[in-house]
Amino acid sequence: MDAQTCLKKLEYVGVLNFATVGLDGTPQIRCVSAIHYEPDKLYFFTAKGKDFCRELLEDGQVQILAYTRYKEMIRVSANAVPVAETEQKNYIDLIFQEQPYLENVYPGKTREIGIVFAIRDMQIEYFNLGVNPIFREQYLVGNGENKPKGYEITNHCIGCGTCVKGCPQRCIKPGNPYYIIQENCLHCGNCLEHCPVKAIRRL
Amino acid sequence: MDAQTCLKKLEYVGVLNFATVGLDGTPQIRCVSAIHYEPDKLYFFTAKGKDFCRELLEDGQVQILAYTRYKEMIRVSANAVPVAETEQKNYIDLIFQEQPYLENVYPGKTREIGIVFAIRDMQIEYFNLGVNPIFREQYLVGNGENKPKGYEITNHCIGCGTCVKGCPQRCIKPGNPYYIIQENCLHCGNCLEHCPVKAIRRL
Repeated sequence: MDAQTCLKKLEYVGVLNFATVGLDGTPQIRCVSAIHYEPDKLYFFTAKGKDFCRELLEDGQVQILAYTRYKEMIRVSANAVPVAETEQKNYIDLIFQEQPYLENVYPGKTREIGIVFAIRDMQIEYFNLGVNPIFREQYLVGNGENKPKGYEITNHCIGCGTCVKGCPQRCIKPGNPYYIIQENCLHCGNCLEHCPVKAIRRL
Repeated sequence: MDAQTCLKKLEYVGVLNFATVGLDGTPQIRCVSAIHYEPDKLYFFTAKGKDFCRELLEDGQVQILAYTRYKEMIRVSANAVPVAETEQKNYIDLIFQEQPYLENVYPGKTREIGIVFAIRDMQIEYFNLGVNPIFREQYLVGNGENKPKGYEITNHCIGCGTCVKGCPQRCIKPGNPYYIIQENCLHCGNCLEHCPVKAIRRL
């Protein structure tokens, strides 16, 4: 898997879930399908009066999630940035041309209440629960920020093997110290919970 | 539409999107299918080591979103509460019995790293962009909190009709003051943006 394939898969899914943090600090989520895709960018339309728009203008942080027909989860962490004022009309018209249903929602000139945001820099997480062992990977696009997640076995490991026995995905291997195959890790925390010498830490 | 039908639709969709706020204040979103449904509650499984679990234990606020095959969006705002310690095993086993694939992910006793959260009190938003005019409604379950959204025309309205002409969904009607048919409102903000006397306010 790679970043470009993940972005292509998002396009096939078509309706993506966008999470933001509300101005009151609450989690906010909605479906968006008014999206124009480029190989390494995406542009989406919303209306200026929606809370979604205010959250994006205030803070810009967004996570986007798609679940594919092949039971893959693809998650994008990014900052959404409004397209330059001079380019707004072009992008609005492009998205409306690609998705004619939008004309039913915002007929005629009412589309002018819209605003298009761009996502250019992203961290993409690919996660597949349908293979054995499960599989995950991360990719960066543009200046996307790499945020490591999961667990790591430190040098305090005494090699007792407790973590190996408890791992649902059998993704911990002997070594000095023992190590986790990150691509196959559920991040369930069983190893950390049962390590008798607390040799395991969160990344 | 009503709350129970919405919850039934969530069950048919099967894979739901859960948004939380990360411990670092960032939006967080993931798919969850390990869910047991009751007519007015839902119970879901996650693993104790996941960030998702920590976010829920810390704060509990969650929004859940499903997009149905009929192009409806159903969104639940709620607090997730861990099931009582004495009931955890029962609910974990119930969810694993209903969804046998979970045994492949967490085989044997490794399911014990799991934790089940309940959602009993919720605000449900139903939103359908595929009808003309669009349709939205809200329902409460249990002690779910009612958070009004959208716009309202106040008594400062001078009856000029500018808002009516600009409304993409033609959901503003003459009156004294003019009024918005909330069930058909996109929350796009066009009326507020163009009202010459600032008679329109956000709810």
